[in-house]
Formats: sequence, C-alpha cells, structure tokens
Amino acid sequence: MRTLLAEGLGTAFLLIGVVGSGIMGDALAGGNIAIALLANAIATGCILYVIITVLGPISGAHFNPAVTLAFLLRGELPAARAVPYVLVQVIGGILGVWAAHLMFDLSILQVSTTDRTGPSQWASEIIATFGLLFVIFGGIKQKPDAVPTLVALYITGAYWFTSSTSFANPAVTIARGFSDTFAGINPAHIPMFILMQIIGVGVAALILPRLFGK
Amino acid sequence: MRTLLAEGLGTAFLLIGVVGSGIMGDALAGGNIAIALLANAIATGCILYVIITVLGPISGAHFNPAVTLAFLLRGELPAARAVPYVLVQVIGGILGVWAAHLMFDLSILQVSTTDRTGPSQWASEIIATFGLLFVIFGGIKQKPDAVPTLVALYITGAYWFTSSTSFANPAVTIARGFSDTFAGINPAHIPMFILMQIIGVGVAALILPRLFGK
Amino acid sequence: MRTLLAEGLGTAFLLIGVVGSGIMGDALAGGNIAIALLANAIATGCILYVIITVLGPISGAHFNPAVTLAFLLRGELPAARAVPYVLVQVIGGILGVWAAHLMFDLSILQVSTTDRTGPSQWASEIIATFGLLFVIFGGIKQKPDAVPTLVALYITGAYWFTSSTSFANPAVTIARGFSDTFAGINPAHIPMFILMQIIGVGVAALILPRLFGK
Amino acid sequence: MRTLLAEGLGTAFLLIGVVGSGIMGDALAGGNIAIALLANAIATGCILYVIITVLGPISGAHFNPAVTLAFLLRGELPAARAVPYVLVQVIGGILGVWAAHLMFDLSILQVSTTDRTGPSQWASEIIATFGLLFVIFGGIKQKPDAVPTLVALYITGAYWFTSSTSFANPAVTIARGFSDTFAGINPAHIPMFILMQIIGVGVAALILPRLFGK
Repeated sequence: MRTLLAEGLGTAFLLIGVVGSGIMGDALAGGNIAIALLANAIATGCILYVIITVLGPISGAHFNPAVTLAFLLRGELPAARAVPYVLVQVIGGILGVWAAHLMFDLSILQVSTTDRTGPSQWASEIIATFGLLFVIFGGIKQKPDAVPTLVALYITGAYWFTSSTSFANPAVTIARGFSDTFAGINPAHIPMFILMQIIGVGVAALILPRLFGK
Repeated sequence: MRTLLAEGLGTAFLLIGVVGSGIMGDALAGGNIAIALLANAIATGCILYVIITVLGPISGAHFNPAVTLAFLLRGELPAARAVPYVLVQVIGGILGVWAAHLMFDLSILQVSTTDRTGPSQWASEIIATFGLLFVIFGGIKQKPDAVPTLVALYITGAYWFTSSTSFANPAVTIARGFSDTFAGINPAHIPMFILMQIIGVGVAALILPRLFGK
Repeated sequence: MRTLLAEGLGTAFLLIGVVGSGIMGDALAGGNIAIALLANAIATGCILYVIITVLGPISGAHFNPAVTLAFLLRGELPAARAVPYVLVQVIGGILGVWAAHLMFDLSILQVSTTDRTGPSQWASEIIATFGLLFVIFGGIKQKPDAVPTLVALYITGAYWFTSSTSFANPAVTIARGFSDTFAGINPAHIPMFILMQIIGVGVAALILPRLFGK
Repeated sequence: MRTLLAEGLGTAFLLIGVVGSGIMGDALAGGNIAIALLANAIATGCILYVIITVLGPISGAHFNPAVTLAFLLRGELPAARAVPYVLVQVIGGILGVWAAHLMFDLSILQVSTTDRTGPSQWASEIIATFGLLFVIFGGIKQKPDAVPTLVALYITGAYWFTSSTSFANPAVTIARGFSDTFAGINPAHIPMFILMQIIGVGVAALILPRLFGK
C-alpha cells in the first residue's frame, strides 16, 4: 500500500507540475509560446527531481507505465506488481490534472482538443521514450545517486528537442487527455502516442543491454 | 541567540530574494509577466538553496512558521523554541522586504494592494504547503544532503504550478503584505492564506507518516 | 564496439539536443532570438549532463574530435583508437541531425545557408575550445565527479559569451552543416571553424599543464 | 606563479562570462531587458561554477579583491600574497573584457558611459557583498564541496534582487568600466561601488563570526 501511495502521489504531483505550469505559462506569456514552454519545461524538471528523490527509495519512482513495463521486461518487477503500479499511475495522474484545474479555477472535468498527431510527433515519442529509458537504466548502472537529476534534466531538455515535447509516459499521456489547456492532448491522438512509447520501450530493450549489460 | 540570528537573517535574505527579484523582473519585463515570474522563481530558488545550505546546520533553516509548526507537531521542537523561531521569522521577513525597498529606491513602508484571494488560490496554498512539507520531511528521511536542492527546486516549480505562486509560508505571507510591488499581497487576504497553510500542515501530518514513518 | 556505440549514440543525442531545440525555440519565440537561444542553451546543457554521466564510464564521453585529439596529444589515447572515435562522432552527429529533422517534419537532407564567419567568430572558437578543455582536464584533475556538470554549465554559459555560440567541436560543426535551421552553419565556413578549434586544442596543450600538471 | 595564473585566468573567464553574455543578450533580446538580464545572470552563474570548481584547489578561487581582503582580515592570507592576488585579478578582469570585445567584433578599448549610482545602488552593493561573503564563509564552514554551487546560485539570484545587479567585486567593477556595453559602469561611479563593497566586507567581518565562528 505504501508503495502504491508513493506511485500515485508522485504521478499526481508530476501532472500538477506539467499541467499547472502549462496553464500559468500560457496565461502570462502574452502569446509568446516559447516563454510558456520554458516555464513548463523548467517546472516539470523541478518536480521530477523532487518526486524521484523523495519517493524513489519507496516505490522506485516510476510514475510511468513505460518505465514499469521496462522493469517488467528486464525481469526486475513481477507482473503482479506491475499491474497495480500502472493503475495507480493513471489514477494518480488524472487526480493531479484535476487538482491543477482546481488550483486554477477551471472546470474540473475537461477533454482536450489539442491535436498532437502525425509521423514527426510519433517519431518524437519513440525517440523520447527510448532516451528516457537510456537515461534511467544508464543512470542506475553508472551513477544511481544521479538518477533524479538525470531524469529531470533529460525531460527539461526533451521538451525542446522533440516536436511532441516528449510525453514519453502513457499515464501522463492519458491524464493530459483530460485537460483542455496548454499541456492537453486530444484523446483521439492518445492511442498512437502510447503505441509509440511502447515501441520506444522495445527499442530500448534491444539497444540498452549492449551498452549497460543486463 | 545564534540560532535565532540564523533564522532571522535567513528569512530576511529569502524576502530580499522574493521581493527584490519581483521588483526587478516587473521593471524590466516590459509587461511580459511570464518573464518577470521566471526571474522571480529562479532567484527565489537560488537564494533558498543558499540559505538552507549555509544556515541549516545552525538553526535547521526553517525560515517558515509552517515548517516550525510541523516540527512542533512531530515532537521534534519544543514549544518554547517554536515561539521565538516564529517571531524572528516574521521580523526577519519584514526587515528583508524593507531592505529590498531600500535597494530599489522605493518607500520603505508600504502596504500591498495586490488581491490574492478566492477558492482556487486557497486550494493552491493547501497543496503548496503540503508539497513543501512532503519535500522537506521526505528529503530528511531519504537524502538529507539534498534538502537544500529539494526545497529550492520545489519552490521554483511551484511558482508555476499553483495559481497563488506558492507562498506556503506564513512569515513570507505577512512580510509580502508590506510590499506594494510584484510580490505583494493585500493584507486583507493574508489571514485566509495563513489558514490554508496551516491546513496544509495538517494534511501533511496525516499523510506523510504513511510514506516516511515518524 | 561498445565504446564506439557509446560515442556514436552520445554524439547523436548531442546533435538532437542542439538542432532540435534550435528548431523548436526558433519556431516558438516569435522572432525574439534571445528566447530561442536561451532554450537552445538550456536544452544543450541538459543533454550534455545526461550523456556524459551515463556514457562517460564506457567511452570517456568525448563526443568531440577536439577532445579526442587532446587526449591523443597527452598520450592517454592511442592513435589507433582516436581515428574510429572521430569517425563515429561525425557519423553519429549527422545521424542525430537527421533524427531531429525527422522529429520536426523537415526534409532529412539539408545544407545550411547560415553564415558563421569572420575574425570575431574565429576568435570565439579558439577561446571556446580552450575553455572546454580547461574545464574537462581541470575537472578530471580536481573533481572527476563534477565533469558532467562542468561541461554542461560551461557550454550553457558559452552559448552566450562567445559570438559563435561555442561550437567548440568539429563533429558538431560538420553535423550542423547538414541543417538549414537555427543551429546550422554554411559548409563553406566549416573549415575555418575546425581550424580554430584545433588551434584551441594547441593553446590548451600549452597552458593547461602549467595549471593542472600532466 | 601557478596560483597567480589561476587567479588571473579565472577572473578573465569571469569577465568574459559577464561582459560577453551581456553583449549577446542585449543584441538578441529585442529591447526586452529582462531576457537579456536572465541570460546574463545564467551565463555568469555557469562560469562561476566552472572556475571555482576547477581553480579552487589551486588558488582558492577568489577572483575578487573583496574576498581576498576578507581572507586577509581573518588572518588566513598574508598581506604579501594579497597584493599580487588583487593585481592579477584586476589585470585578468580587464583582459577578459578585452577578450569579450574581440569575440564580439567591438573596439577593444572602451570606456563605459552607463551610469550606476545613487543610494539604492550603493546599499545594493553593501548587501550584495555581505551576502557573497556570507555564502562563501558559511559554505566553507558547513559544506565546502558546495561552495562553487553556492556562489554560482547566489550571484545568479543576486543579479535580480539588487538594483545594482550585484557587482560585489572591485576587480569586476574596474574591468566593467572598460566596456561600454550592457554590463558596463561609468568609471566616475566605480569608486563609490568599491567603497560600498569594502563596507560590505566590514559588515561581514562583524556578523559572520557570530554565525560561523572564526
């Protein structure tokens, strides 16, 4: 239970960070989207560092079904634990989005209308997810203490160097479908994003063992 | 005395950071509030890292009556010490605001006229304060060396993902009532902010022991 | 092979970071180049920290023929290893540029038309490359654990304090010739950039041993 | 000699960082001074982290006559060493300014016409210098490993929370007199800045021993 509480609360904070800072940035930037995205990327990096540092020793700090799947494929997490992890990540993520709406005086229940689709964004999600796992499993191998910093900086950067702004996380993707704000994604475009993220997990499963062993 | 000097000086520097950078950002950003808030958030994170690292070993580096209250509730600080801590935090904070006014050639004595009220901002303060304590007590448990970084990054992010910009600190809230600048808060709206911060302490007292033990 | 895979993949990620964030920043900044460059510099620093931390223990994390040349001159890398390092850095860099184009829905094959030439930019490349080696070899001597942070922060800063935005890397220079986007460089101007970078290596070879020994 | 080379080269890089990033930010920000100052502050923090980490073990990484004076007053540096330190800091700083001009294709020899004067800026310099010494001597006492990060973050923040943008360094002040660019200071206003910085050293000498001992 403590483990699931950690995964749920952490994912909720992650979505508060992503969606809340997107709303604030968009509201204040006066149409200059680059400034909104800069705030969004920095705030997301900040909250990632925090939740991974504080909750990592409890649950491993996945907050991401793609990460949970990668641990499952490596045989480091039993399937019986992976399923509740993913459930609690999705639920936590949606609650986080609702908390952000509450804090910004918006309707709690929303459905995004922001289109995020097309081959370039799909390619982005494959590369973004591969890169995230590269960073996590490389960090665990080379410098475990640095994993919170690695993930935080990787995602802050990846907001900028992928056209999808690097969702790289099925729970985050689903949760962002529930927000018609800066960070939202039209639910019709969610399945392809998740499929690409799963492909990214597969690519990582092929390549990373050559770099970091098993 | 050395402990109280540390709490007072640290809180003064915190308010210099918050109020001073707000004034500078607002003055230079040419109406683009997002850039002002970005500077404000980054400068606040910078000064938080500094004062917690340098003064933490002396006083614990609370700089925040909500943090002092949380330590009191955990039985880790006697009430006889908590009262002077809070007093010196409030006094230090106000002196810091005045120092910022002095440095920017503004009237020293000011009263804010910036409205910060309404349910969404109140909810923000509950969540912001809960999150701050989550970060502090989680950090103390999991990685004490990282506490300065944790608090600095959490607050830098929380500026963006809460509609109140995360005061999360009664001494800071009172002190900001004394500044009719970017970071100010109309004194009429201070009591509710502080009440919400106290509620955040209560929520943390309920939830955090389940995550991090006592 | 594992070493070369690390060098190639790392350099590819570096170019994804540089070119991708340049495209995104330029597209969103609404003509305010400073904001685009800020995003570009931050994203580059983020990816540098990540790839050096994770791949450093495998290949040394050069990702840069100037760095490889400097190790060769110090007698710490045999020439037989330096040649494939440089090849794989150049190939990885170009593949990274192409991946960035793919992710942003641009023609894969491009040739830059951005002029980057003149004595001030050449002087910038000498100083930028000298500074990079100063940071790397100083870091290895004084605080090896900090090398990823040192390089990341140095380059983030050097984007701003040199007129060339600090390429400081022949593989990056060649690869950026293949991108007619924000980060591109007209191929006609590449040879002088690389020559200046090599001069920077020479200056470092003269000065650094006086500071850090051999 | 090695020590003086370190002080000179470090101060040169500091001024390259300060003046160069000021020129670049000012040139690209399209009149939005806040963005120029943000780039200026971030680049300065980056280079400070780098030079203090890499040169600290050689010379102590003062790069600042106010810091050298503070060590002298504490009896931790003999006067016979302090004098050449200060000389080499000033010379290194001026050479750094000239290197920045060279890299940005500006006349090498310049005299600033930027007014920086008045009681609010003078108060800023006292507080900024006190704060810098608070951070340095507090850091040396509490967490020596963190000194590069402490100074870098303190100065990045202090750009924003003081109206003078925190010179806090007589060598930097003199050198910036030689640049009629964003970071410049009218030479007529230099003596008062330096006097205030010396007063800041005095205030620190009174207060810091109460916090951190001798």
